[in-house]
Amino acid sequence: MGKVFTDMAVSVDGYTAGLNQRADAPFGDGVGDSLHAWMFQEPEENAAEIAEIVAAGAFIMGRNMFSPGRGDWDLDWTGWWGPEPPYHGPVFVLTHHERKPVVMEGGTTFHFVTGGIEEALEQARAAAGGADISIAGGAATVNQFVAAGLLDEIRLHITPVLLGRGERLFEGVDHVDLTPVSVRGNDRVTHVRYVVKR
Amino acid sequence: MGKVFTDMAVSVDGYTAGLNQRADAPFGDGVGDSLHAWMFQEPEENAAEIAEIVAAGAFIMGRNMFSPGRGDWDLDWTGWWGPEPPYHGPVFVLTHHERKPVVMEGGTTFHFVTGGIEEALEQARAAAGGADISIAGGAATVNQFVAAGLLDEIRLHITPVLLGRGERLFEGVDHVDLTPVSVRGNDRVTHVRYVVKR
Repeated sequence: MGKVFTDMAVSVDGYTAGLNQRADAPFGDGVGDSLHAWMFQEPEENAAEIAEIVAAGAFIMGRNMFSPGRGDWDLDWTGWWGPEPPYHGPVFVLTHHERKPVVMEGGTTFHFVTGGIEEALEQARAAAGGADISIAGGAATVNQFVAAGLLDEIRLHITPVLLGRGERLFEGVDHVDLTPVSVRGNDRVTHVRYVVKR
Repeated sequence: MGKVFTDMAVSVDGYTAGLNQRADAPFGDGVGDSLHAWMFQEPEENAAEIAEIVAAGAFIMGRNMFSPGRGDWDLDWTGWWGPEPPYHGPVFVLTHHERKPVVMEGGTTFHFVTGGIEEALEQARAAAGGADISIAGGAATVNQFVAAGLLDEIRLHITPVLLGRGERLFEGVDHVDLTPVSVRGNDRVTHVRYVVKR
């Protein structure tokens, strides 16, 4: 059975996104793509980390990541990534509204799950066929998985900035012990990988 | 002129201490010495980082670090470190109450400063004679120095645990850009050193 992991881009003060997230600024005001610059502006230097993310056999994300700031989205909304999202595999979106799967270009299919994180994980495991599962975000969804003890690995990609405000990773999570298994970095990002102790 | 730096032991979710800090549990409930275990239980493996801390020519700390949870301390209170505190040099304690310096064993002298962080820094610089200044904590004091743009380096020592509650580093600090200049770690701690961009 594959591992359940998350890769989260965070500021040094623990934010994953700014305020006022919306479709045309999915990471919110004052953040933009700065927390993800290591992926998009220096993909070669961070190739190992990026390869591990896209190697997942299935992805799970929260409603607000699929549809930032829109609440209940229109039935013709297909995410903010354009016609070819970067997942290239099955993506399970947590929602309260039933909706048929949406097939995108490049292998991404969005499935909509109304039964919560356990049901999403069950469906993702079935779709992944033994490969790893990525909890793609946002912070609130990752926090739910951490709190429920369903994550095997937490991979933080820490951008060297203090943001001072935004959506905070690990908010509302109680005591969890971790083991750091690797750390490396460059001018733009520090990668730290933790295994969750059971 | 020496650098102004801070070394802060933090959890992965950014806490430097637990709740209910007091003289017999200076780091609060549920934290104990766990965030400082890398210093006290594995000093050899982390010798380089420890050497840099104690190399400071003077130290500045907040009232609550000198006297955890006691508010205005008795005039016979000499800290919670015992007769020989680990500083071995001049320590400037921020307070609202005038008090004569207290000379401890091993070279530590506590000076009490009522004029705020700028006055403390001025006195520490004079005492350090060109050596570096360490902002020793707690989080609220470090946050004041970060917010005022008075810190040159931030050295985080990240213990692999999510605490979920406590005193948070960087609370109330606005946008600050950093440059990571070194990162290394072991099973018990990840050391990341940042230079503050001006």
